[in-house]
Amino acid sequence: MTTIAIDAMGGDRAPADIVAGALDAARLADLDIDVVLIGDEARVLPLLPSELPSNLVVEHAPEVIEMSDDPAAAIRSKRASSLVRCAEAVRDGRADAMVGAGNTGATMAAALLRWGRIRGVNRPAIAVPLPIPGSDRKQLLVDGGATVDPEPAWLAQWARLGRAYATVRFDTAEPTVGLLSNGEEPGKGDALRKAAHGLFDDIPGFIGNVEGRDLMRASADVIVPDGFTGNVALKTAEGALLGIAGMVFAVLDRPEFAEVADPIKLALLTAAADLLPDNTGGALLLGVQGVCIISHGSSSATAIVNAVRVADQSVRAGVVDRLTEAAGSAV
Amino acid sequence: MTTIAIDAMGGDRAPADIVAGALDAARLADLDIDVVLIGDEARVLPLLPSELPSNLVVEHAPEVIEMSDDPAAAIRSKRASSLVRCAEAVRDGRADAMVGAGNTGATMAAALLRWGRIRGVNRPAIAVPLPIPGSDRKQLLVDGGATVDPEPAWLAQWARLGRAYATVRFDTAEPTVGLLSNGEEPGKGDALRKAAHGLFDDIPGFIGNVEGRDLMRASADVIVPDGFTGNVALKTAEGALLGIAGMVFAVLDRPEFAEVADPIKLALLTAAADLLPDNTGGALLLGVQGVCIISHGSSSATAIVNAVRVADQSVRAGVVDRLTEAAGSAV
Repeated sequence: MTTIAIDAMGGDRAPADIVAGALDAARLADLDIDVVLIGDEARVLPLLPSELPSNLVVEHAPEVIEMSDDPAAAIRSKRASSLVRCAEAVRDGRADAMVGAGNTGATMAAALLRWGRIRGVNRPAIAVPLPIPGSDRKQLLVDGGATVDPEPAWLAQWARLGRAYATVRFDTAEPTVGLLSNGEEPGKGDALRKAAHGLFDDIPGFIGNVEGRDLMRASADVIVPDGFTGNVALKTAEGALLGIAGMVFAVLDRPEFAEVADPIKLALLTAAADLLPDNTGGALLLGVQGVCIISHGSSSATAIVNAVRVADQSVRAGVVDRLTEAAGSAV
Repeated sequence: MTTIAIDAMGGDRAPADIVAGALDAARLADLDIDVVLIGDEARVLPLLPSELPSNLVVEHAPEVIEMSDDPAAAIRSKRASSLVRCAEAVRDGRADAMVGAGNTGATMAAALLRWGRIRGVNRPAIAVPLPIPGSDRKQLLVDGGATVDPEPAWLAQWARLGRAYATVRFDTAEPTVGLLSNGEEPGKGDALRKAAHGLFDDIPGFIGNVEGRDLMRASADVIVPDGFTGNVALKTAEGALLGIAGMVFAVLDRPEFAEVADPIKLALLTAAADLLPDNTGGALLLGVQGVCIISHGSSSATAIVNAVRVADQSVRAGVVDRLTEAAGSAV
């Protein structure tokens, strides 16, 4: 039995979609979980049935951290927020993991400030799962946006943490690792990449530099950028996919294809479902003393259910212990 | 009349496709150009008809700079290479512009070492045109990969240069400018972006930070990353587009769509034609004392024709003078 704390107030569609997702997750027959749904009771309770599932409790938290709030300041000033209370539920042992779709920086700050870092880890990183079109495999992008301006050694540390997590997440025995750069040759890169490259040489599974076009492709299981580049790459891929999808549907909407378009659109949407952020299952915050799953900002109920699945899997696999071991292995 | 020097030996498909493109460009009725095709005569001449167009001459250059060559070293050691000879043709006034599809770093080094920088420009940048799906408009990404590890002031300089070039390339009177960052708020970014943001405030048309998802979308006309991030973003977008295109075609290849797939595929390919790098027309190297158009590595004959068009346009518009003026405007 795993207990998952869910921030009911975080995300563009909060609280309605988050509450719906929490309820769905609690009702899943194949998950053996308890759910602690934390948020403003006045807004959360009306969204729930009068008879709650026996494995779901609501915990009142009067304050809300907004997307526009400064992360560190919000954690300090909004101590009664649903986000801070989620982190405290894990710290105090009332939950085994937390799931949030709100302000990413604030979620990270809450986990860092309430749990602390894993010994030996300098800065946390977000391990974002990337789908690979036409494949069941996924990649981890580490860091997807937690830490900008890292030192070279931190990149190598994230590679080790990402690799340890990939074994849990994807059940891959020996994950491969690539350093994201602007060319495949070892000498390619900016100052950060050139300094980091040598530190990667003794990381098991290191295949060398990879490039932007190796994202969302069966290249390396773990791809390591700094958090700034990782964030730009993620959003660039998202924008490109949306742009081309719009173009494809505009073509199918032409009058000459009116009679055949619908089944093709349906087949395309089904094929593309695995690419949608709602279905990739949320990102693990690597390097903190607890399991924190960050779901994307516009999470639907489905996204929350998938994030809860990943949280449960991470707890059962003892991911914090595995990451602690991985962080120690470089010393 | 504009004279364009073309490096016959640069690019994955050189010399065959480059020579074919040079010939096509010379024969175009709507272009008033002379072509100087520079390369190894033993390999170039057999690809040409015995009777050349009167506006095309072949100039022999016995050496070839390979994709794998170190840029600066290759320019020093291969003085008789087609690439160096192209830059010298412009320097010596035998050509008004050069077009190359080979080693990007070496092309940049040749232009820098043979022409020098525009007064006031610290480092060159590559202005890569990005298509916007479903639109006739394009964006310029500056820098697309010339200079990694720039100083904050160089980003602001590239913004001014990019803006001046956008007025020529896209005939936009008042181009808008965005600083590529990991969030829209002015406080977002790594140390480089935070330091650069204030320097952008007095750049005309500055709309603030933009994100990865604003690439290939009608957001800003000029988007400014450092060369490392720009390269990763370009290749990420390319990879995402190829991935999704493969998925769409795999769906259309299913037996149930056999009877309707062909016209849809044709319509999709036509709609996507503007997105292909062959059709975007090549990237201008900003900041050097001459017109250098860099076409992508796997350039076809069509890509070379389009790059020649852009070179001709740049010369006629006096782009070097305009960039010199823009570089001076910040002083």
